[in-house]
Amino acid sequence: MGQVVVHATMSLDGYIAGPDVSIDLPMGREGERLHEWLFARPQDPLDAREALALKNGFGAVVIGRRTFDVGIGPWQDTPFAAPCFVVTHEVRPPLPQKSGTFRFVNDGVASAVRQALAEAGLRDVNLMGAGIVQQALAAGLVDKMRIQVAPLLLGGGRPLFDGPGVPTALRCVEVAPSARVRHLRYRMD
Amino acid sequence: MGQVVVHATMSLDGYIAGPDVSIDLPMGREGERLHEWLFARPQDPLDAREALALKNGFGAVVIGRRTFDVGIGPWQDTPFAAPCFVVTHEVRPPLPQKSGTFRFVNDGVASAVRQALAEAGLRDVNLMGAGIVQQALAAGLVDKMRIQVAPLLLGGGRPLFDGPGVPTALRCVEVAPSARVRHLRYRMD
Repeated sequence: MGQVVVHATMSLDGYIAGPDVSIDLPMGREGERLHEWLFARPQDPLDAREALALKNGFGAVVIGRRTFDVGIGPWQDTPFAAPCFVVTHEVRPPLPQKSGTFRFVNDGVASAVRQALAEAGLRDVNLMGAGIVQQALAAGLVDKMRIQVAPLLLGGGRPLFDGPGVPTALRCVEVAPSARVRHLRYRMD
Repeated sequence: MGQVVVHATMSLDGYIAGPDVSIDLPMGREGERLHEWLFARPQDPLDAREALALKNGFGAVVIGRRTFDVGIGPWQDTPFAAPCFVVTHEVRPPLPQKSGTFRFVNDGVASAVRQALAEAGLRDVNLMGAGIVQQALAAGLVDKMRIQVAPLLLGGGRPLFDGPGVPTALRCVEVAPSARVRHLRYRMD
């Protein structure tokens, strides 16, 4: 069975998007700078490996409603070539896209994670959106984290981690420095 | 002339102390776990190098009032063998200790940093306390950061970085993984 993974880029001060996220500004003010490592060319080999893991590494994705709302415009598709489960209170029929289908889950993150794991088979499930990550961490649903720490203080925005929570020990699995970002990998113990 | 350095250990969720910091609990709940890398034996060579840089690397220290209040008990001395400048509204005479003297600065962090740099000569100045770090960053007074990211989610506490701020690009200088902690080094550009 696959595992549940948080794979996200955050600033050194802990934000995965800048202030004032909206449909028109999906990454918030200055938030695009977080992802420079993904789009820089020539690409550092480590960044290329991580980008590939992000792009092709997941058998299904669980997405928060806010992330879906601001993402669907720029993506013009599912964010990855995999089935996507959007956690929302809104009852909606499945929304097929070029590379996968958005399905809308109304009974919470644990249910969405369960459905995504079933769909992903042996592959991992990615969690997208700070709210989803925080709920999944609080519910003990996360197995691994792959965090890119971008060399940037955003000074505000959407924090990846946001208490109140319980102290949780992580096990460092790997750290890899590229020219542009620090790749940190953890397992939840 | 020396440089102004933030040298601190933070959890992956950005806290340098757990919740409920007090005289009786200077690192907050579970906050002591942040510094396990400093006290673990046998010590990883990288951790030993960084601990030595922290212990002996500074010619002077600027300390926030809150850090001083909760630290003076456990330290029973200055925290490092160097002159210490405590930023406070309270007018107090210098307080000599075994390894240095606490001096109390009443006209703000910029003044304390100036006095500390003058005292440190060619050596660097360390900033202790989240409030001091945040004020120094906002005032553009920080030259370098050496951040240890501990494999731990504290879920609450005292954040090292706390907006509102302006986006600030950092230059990654080094990343070094030990068995216990990730050492990240940045220069402010």
